[in-house]
Amino acid sequence: MNLSLNPSAAVATGSGVVRFERPLRLDSGASLDSVEIAYETYGELNAAKTNAVLICHALTLDQHVASINPTTGKPGWWDRMVGPGLPLDPERYFIICSNVLGGCMGSTGPSSINPATGQPYGLTFPVITIPDMVRAQAMLVERLGIESLFSVIGGSMGGMQVLQWAADYPERMFSGVCIAAAPRHSAQNIAFHEVGRQAIMADPAWSGGDYARLGSRPQKGLAVARMAAHITYLSEPALQRKFGRELQRDGLSWSFDADFQVESYLRHQGTSFVDRFDANSYLYITRAMDYFDLAAAYGGVLAQAFRGLASTPFFVVSFTSDWLYPTPDSRTIVRALNAAGAKASFVEVESDKGHDAFLLDEPVLDAALHGFLGSAALSRGLA
Amino acid sequence: MNLSLNPSAAVATGSGVVRFERPLRLDSGASLDSVEIAYETYGELNAAKTNAVLICHALTLDQHVASINPTTGKPGWWDRMVGPGLPLDPERYFIICSNVLGGCMGSTGPSSINPATGQPYGLTFPVITIPDMVRAQAMLVERLGIESLFSVIGGSMGGMQVLQWAADYPERMFSGVCIAAAPRHSAQNIAFHEVGRQAIMADPAWSGGDYARLGSRPQKGLAVARMAAHITYLSEPALQRKFGRELQRDGLSWSFDADFQVESYLRHQGTSFVDRFDANSYLYITRAMDYFDLAAAYGGVLAQAFRGLASTPFFVVSFTSDWLYPTPDSRTIVRALNAAGAKASFVEVESDKGHDAFLLDEPVLDAALHGFLGSAALSRGLA
Repeated sequence: MNLSLNPSAAVATGSGVVRFERPLRLDSGASLDSVEIAYETYGELNAAKTNAVLICHALTLDQHVASINPTTGKPGWWDRMVGPGLPLDPERYFIICSNVLGGCMGSTGPSSINPATGQPYGLTFPVITIPDMVRAQAMLVERLGIESLFSVIGGSMGGMQVLQWAADYPERMFSGVCIAAAPRHSAQNIAFHEVGRQAIMADPAWSGGDYARLGSRPQKGLAVARMAAHITYLSEPALQRKFGRELQRDGLSWSFDADFQVESYLRHQGTSFVDRFDANSYLYITRAMDYFDLAAAYGGVLAQAFRGLASTPFFVVSFTSDWLYPTPDSRTIVRALNAAGAKASFVEVESDKGHDAFLLDEPVLDAALHGFLGSAALSRGLA
Repeated sequence: MNLSLNPSAAVATGSGVVRFERPLRLDSGASLDSVEIAYETYGELNAAKTNAVLICHALTLDQHVASINPTTGKPGWWDRMVGPGLPLDPERYFIICSNVLGGCMGSTGPSSINPATGQPYGLTFPVITIPDMVRAQAMLVERLGIESLFSVIGGSMGGMQVLQWAADYPERMFSGVCIAAAPRHSAQNIAFHEVGRQAIMADPAWSGGDYARLGSRPQKGLAVARMAAHITYLSEPALQRKFGRELQRDGLSWSFDADFQVESYLRHQGTSFVDRFDANSYLYITRAMDYFDLAAAYGGVLAQAFRGLASTPFFVVSFTSDWLYPTPDSRTIVRALNAAGAKASFVEVESDKGHDAFLLDEPVLDAALHGFLGSAALSRGLA
């Protein structure tokens, strides 16, 4: 058990790694043997097994949703949402968060050892998809003895997973929450990810993806990828408000040192990221997001993807300044959910914080989520 | 004389390199000896020397405004605007375009030989500014025997130079045209440039900027920089319209090859760029743009920068989908110009093409520029 540095942080009441002996069948046609999924839980499953919540994490996050992250020593990424008295209260819910398939925090991914060779997979790891990630999550949930989740919740790529759950396992979710997400990646989304991948693959230390075996790490390329992506997580007004043209020191350096605070901030985002994330995982997970196009398997009709939902309560949230997955994407989701017969409610939160608003202090989001979950809990008969 | 591949392209009627024996004093406090500026001209200077137009180019462009570019073999970058019957008609105007100080197409820049050492400057080249570039242009114009330009015209970084001309040499310009520009770089603008610089400097072949001497070239880093920047030149709707999620081949590759057309397009933008541009020039010119903040030298009051303009006709243009230098930046310029007593007119062109619209087929821009220049020419007494 970790000692919390943040007195308000919840402590994970369970953590572990499940291993599936059956091969995991993948969308690519390949399959993976001996898949492991690392997870944490908060709270207790009730006797009726009706209070389980699955939180799906975003691109570079992990299962440490509200406990100290062992890699960084920092509080969990959503400790402002998960904890006593918070919208996701472990006193009320049994909360599960697992590291995605392809990740680098304990779940099987490209940095894992391929049991067939005894070497890290590297680029021999198969390309995975959002449905593959969700399939592994469903196997975990089953292993935990839960037939039906009270809610599946996620922001950004986590929201994509929520939508995929609604398509693939509608009978196993009582409700869903999709925050700051999109039903498919746009050309601009793909373009930014491609810049990141090219930055990683341009780093000689990447070595064709074989760096783990060779003992090197493509840190510079991964840092550049993170810097480019990070700009898309913030809004232009937030960057202007936070940094403007403020200098690091008194006067310009007349060099290529970081003169502006925004340069220094971005460099820090890049260099700190490489200490906690694996470059190949970044390639595979961004690829999964780019491949994501939920309606494609349903003749291009998104509502068809949700036809199994019956009257499932759904909550969709967007942020006014999110230019990565802007509000029209969320409206498309809401229309399709309602067309399929789900009970979707929608809130567009006024915020200048950009895409990352879902991780930040946005009291309107907290209150709205609290209200939605409380109401759904009543319908589910939770105390 | 070049044989034109594009039958409509104008042919440069003059080209050359001027060399200044006096050291060029720079904003950094440094000075540069033996500065050379490469330029092209179209048309003839009239006897009264009243018909000269200076075109200022953007970040990665050059003096080949309407003639075949010798490096790429492609038509000039604004051959749709400069030519017989076009808004900038060499039959009427004497058109000058010079490669900026710091560039790599013949003007003195970091890839030039430092006369003091006999080696390429590399990072020993001093950091330059937009005012430094404009100072060199003014020396060129003087050398060409022109006391007062009929107009100074430019888009993007070229527009910044136009604004700097208005501040530093108001008596030497009869009119000005500033397209898709800003009076200073925002935090987001700086952030994107910093990603590009970090991508270049992360490339081991960059070798601390000394690659020219060592015979290497940081092509991968420069390509990534270009890819990141290129996204900012296009709008999200234009990317969606042009590429959407269209694939390169029938079906996904299940690999990290370019599956989507937008990926292939971006990769091409990166790899073709490195054949025509120098990595250190990219560092220096982006730095000059990031340092640009016209009002800063005037107590933060932009109108003060324009106080020398008297009733100079000015034309300011923005594009609705330009998110690099959005319309509010242009409105700020217009307000300051008018407050200073200039006669500024403003057009916001409805376009989904993003920042690059100023280089593309936008008939409203052509017509508006034609009208503005025609009217100013009448005031100037040009036939």
